[in-house]
Amino acid sequence: MANPILIEVLRGQIVESRHRGAMAVVDAGGKMVLEIGEVDQPIFPRSAVKSIQALPLVESGAADAYGFGNRELAMACASHSGEPAHVERAAFMLGKAGLDESALECGVHWPYDHESFVALARSGKEPSGLHNNCSGKHSGFLCTCRHLGIEHRGYVAYGHPEQELVREAMEGVTGAVHGLDNMGTDGCSIPTYAVPIRSLALGFARMATGQGLSPLRAEAAKRLLAACMAEPVFTSGTGEADTRLMEAAPGRIFVKIGAEGVYCAALPELGLGIALKCDDGAGRAASAVIAAVLARLLKQDEELARKIWALANPPVLNRRGVTVGVIRPAGPLAEGV
Amino acid sequence: MANPILIEVLRGQIVESRHRGAMAVVDAGGKMVLEIGEVDQPIFPRSAVKSIQALPLVESGAADAYGFGNRELAMACASHSGEPAHVERAAFMLGKAGLDESALECGVHWPYDHESFVALARSGKEPSGLHNNCSGKHSGFLCTCRHLGIEHRGYVAYGHPEQELVREAMEGVTGAVHGLDNMGTDGCSIPTYAVPIRSLALGFARMATGQGLSPLRAEAAKRLLAACMAEPVFTSGTGEADTRLMEAAPGRIFVKIGAEGVYCAALPELGLGIALKCDDGAGRAASAVIAAVLARLLKQDEELARKIWALANPPVLNRRGVTVGVIRPAGPLAEGV
Repeated sequence: MANPILIEVLRGQIVESRHRGAMAVVDAGGKMVLEIGEVDQPIFPRSAVKSIQALPLVESGAADAYGFGNRELAMACASHSGEPAHVERAAFMLGKAGLDESALECGVHWPYDHESFVALARSGKEPSGLHNNCSGKHSGFLCTCRHLGIEHRGYVAYGHPEQELVREAMEGVTGAVHGLDNMGTDGCSIPTYAVPIRSLALGFARMATGQGLSPLRAEAAKRLLAACMAEPVFTSGTGEADTRLMEAAPGRIFVKIGAEGVYCAALPELGLGIALKCDDGAGRAASAVIAAVLARLLKQDEELARKIWALANPPVLNRRGVTVGVIRPAGPLAEGV
Repeated sequence: MANPILIEVLRGQIVESRHRGAMAVVDAGGKMVLEIGEVDQPIFPRSAVKSIQALPLVESGAADAYGFGNRELAMACASHSGEPAHVERAAFMLGKAGLDESALECGVHWPYDHESFVALARSGKEPSGLHNNCSGKHSGFLCTCRHLGIEHRGYVAYGHPEQELVREAMEGVTGAVHGLDNMGTDGCSIPTYAVPIRSLALGFARMATGQGLSPLRAEAAKRLLAACMAEPVFTSGTGEADTRLMEAAPGRIFVKIGAEGVYCAALPELGLGIALKCDDGAGRAASAVIAAVLARLLKQDEELARKIWALANPPVLNRRGVTVGVIRPAGPLAEGV
């Protein structure tokens, strides 16, 4: 059975492209609140679970030992766009652990942020690991290693003590088995594990409520999600989809995009966790799906719901900046608010 | 009915993302040789039909009057990557018509080619319309206007004499109606019309063979496709998918990508035209689909077929350049050569 069409891309009045996907909204007891498509399908969550992967940084005491505040914790959960403030913050984190960018094993790429890309090129410099969108997460890993006295070299490999801490946190929070059988390698070289959409949604309901987690873990989870919601630009970037969604209702919405069309999210006030995957891996579709679902779940707050619904319906622009189409929720998500 | 899954993206051993689509291979008599999915579905061909849109440039005599060779004709059919040679060639074409970049109405964007992007930024300059991937096509439009004594301002608009010439060429070659009812606006501001995949495949069988076209048009079509096959880098860019496919068998394969997951192609030696659309608009999938289909159609040339099949199975790399997965043809395209 094919997952349903969730997003249509129109050019003029004609549907030009279509995106299918699956989504689960779950409470912390595991009760399915809203279900679309194959929610038992295992997916690689990629960067959408960085906040779970950051739990050892807080639980180990490293974050406190190094005096990390919301910005550093947000960076540990971030796919950032390589703006100067992101680069500076990652370097700061590494510095606290007595390290620098040479310790990063995430690889190098140019900033996602267009202006930062152009400015870096104009400066005559090359990007470093600090510009990698995962540099905050990797800095967090390195800080954890240093605080615990673990040899940090090779920290990205399956079986390294740091990745074992991460794997244990992922299993504990989602309840799904994480091992070699369902492992792949992420873009930043660490293991990523394919687990059911339903388990990821449950994981974020637990992250948001603390239910089903140890008191220490519940506290760490709360602190990390609060940091992301307090500093969305440090979790994502200026003008990015995640930033706009979290800024729409400060402290009430947690969202995190993952590569290949994934989102994980939480609504603490409703005690709900959300996970979704667009079959084709399209980020434009995933961003519209999460906005459409959030608008529906928050529909009692009409003004907020309309604001978020608008983010689910972004325009398609041509090269002169003229609107020539629109992205819109379809099928089970078609009904607006 | 959903179109079938044609491409799978694997991370490790697990399928991470899936792309659906439809495709038609047709001879110049309209006989369907290979059919996958909904081939009567209207799609916007976008840039995949630039060679048809360039027919008036040749048919009007403008190309000869301005002394255009293969590189200029390839540029008129191109989605180029904004390399210095592309920019220089577009400026040359405009200069022949007594114009410069200020006449371009395609809008501005930074070069697709990464090195050219960085070099342009390092130079301290900003991109102009010449860097737009469509600047060759637009220069061709402007040359046609000037040669015919048509006021060129507003040449991108529906109803302008240049766009009427283009519309007539598109209708004549594909046999499909092109009008306001099936019109959208392309990224470069000109009209694009949604027509059946089957009609686009027929159009390219005619372009490759001349069958069903007037002698003048048949000659122009042959010249344009030959120019693209002779100068693939000027039709696309260094290292691009189209370049690699056309360079695999010089003069034997014509391919052209279009935005939102489209390809049009022709195999002159077999008298076949090909058109395809990936439902979700993914270019990575469209490039793999066209390679898989070409490998199948050319399987009698085993060495060539294997070379092209490899292009249908590109690796997925992480940020350190390590292979962590693969893109592979699936379903009706799964069988290799």
